[in-house]
Amino acid sequence: MHALSFRYGQRHVGEIEAARRIADEAGVRRHHLLDIDLAVFGGSALTADIDVPKDRDLAPSSSGAGPIPITYVPARNTIFLSYALAFAEVIDSTDIFIGVNALDFSGYPDCRPQYIAAFERMANLATRAGVEGSRALRLHTPLISLSKAGIIRLGASLGVDYSLTTSCYDPEADGAACGRCDACQLRLKGFAEAGLEDPIRYAAAQREAPR
Amino acid sequence: MHALSFRYGQRHVGEIEAARRIADEAGVRRHHLLDIDLAVFGGSALTADIDVPKDRDLAPSSSGAGPIPITYVPARNTIFLSYALAFAEVIDSTDIFIGVNALDFSGYPDCRPQYIAAFERMANLATRAGVEGSRALRLHTPLISLSKAGIIRLGASLGVDYSLTTSCYDPEADGAACGRCDACQLRLKGFAEAGLEDPIRYAAAQREAPR
Repeated sequence: MHALSFRYGQRHVGEIEAARRIADEAGVRRHHLLDIDLAVFGGSALTADIDVPKDRDLAPSSSGAGPIPITYVPARNTIFLSYALAFAEVIDSTDIFIGVNALDFSGYPDCRPQYIAAFERMANLATRAGVEGSRALRLHTPLISLSKAGIIRLGASLGVDYSLTTSCYDPEADGAACGRCDACQLRLKGFAEAGLEDPIRYAAAQREAPR
Repeated sequence: MHALSFRYGQRHVGEIEAARRIADEAGVRRHHLLDIDLAVFGGSALTADIDVPKDRDLAPSSSGAGPIPITYVPARNTIFLSYALAFAEVIDSTDIFIGVNALDFSGYPDCRPQYIAAFERMANLATRAGVEGSRALRLHTPLISLSKAGIIRLGASLGVDYSLTTSCYDPEADGAACGRCDACQLRLKGFAEAGLEDPIRYAAAQREAPR
């Protein structure tokens, strides 16, 4: 098992530090940290100088319908998966895992099952496997159809130490999660619905988890 | 018109300098030069410490069949196109052009029409356009089905200054093309078949263009 993380001009490095903690804990063979420059293009609150929206009303929706939020990073998962594809080909791996989630998904187009299926098809034409007829490459998305509560429950049943993790788009200077951005709201709602306590620290002004 | 070039750990920067000359000449709005780190993965003679093959016998083949050469860079065009997709979405462009060529193609899987079609389909699911039903993104490959001679002739008819261009995988220290790698052989053959003279400099030990 190898792990890939990306510094792509995101507003904070807390998620990189969390990825490193989790990769260590999981005993991966190697954790590759790649620098990619998406900020040069701008166009997203996560990479450009635009405020992260807070306290949005996230109406529950199992269809995933709704406008795409400003925190959407253009083609981000496509770029991540393209690097993963290159790496998989070099180490002769046929399996790529990505934790995208199509429910509670905040409206990102590149988290949907039809997108993942299209990437997998493209990937098998892009590489040696597609020409030489060797083993096909599979894209695995074990979390794609789970609710946030379902993800929390699955992780808890597998022994995941959630204190190592982070979700906040815009943490405080001391690392505490804001509790108010979309990612914090969805995470808190997931823990609440799973009946579990979230072990990470939140800012004092944290809102109650939405019902 | 915007131009994208990539420093991806290739063995020489001559092609970046050539891209800059051509972008200037063409009067593009902006020429973006992106640094991407493919060398960290290795696996190709163009990015790792492996010798570029010389004097290979490139049997003419219109089917594009044959083994994939060591100069293949895993998933390179997929990574390039993913960045182009991100950039297109940010500037609200619906048209991406790439100069891949499926004939005389040295066996690269990511230069084939079926690969390009699969990428275009994936791209339209990856982005806002795919969710919001706005204008579709098109991938244009004007050179894909031309022979090298056909490309040379088309460029000449459009006034391309070939002295600004480069093709060699492994040029001399003074910038002269080696004349012996696959790219040089295919270029020289193309000029010969088009009945035109190649204005760039070649190393003294250059082979005759193959018949």
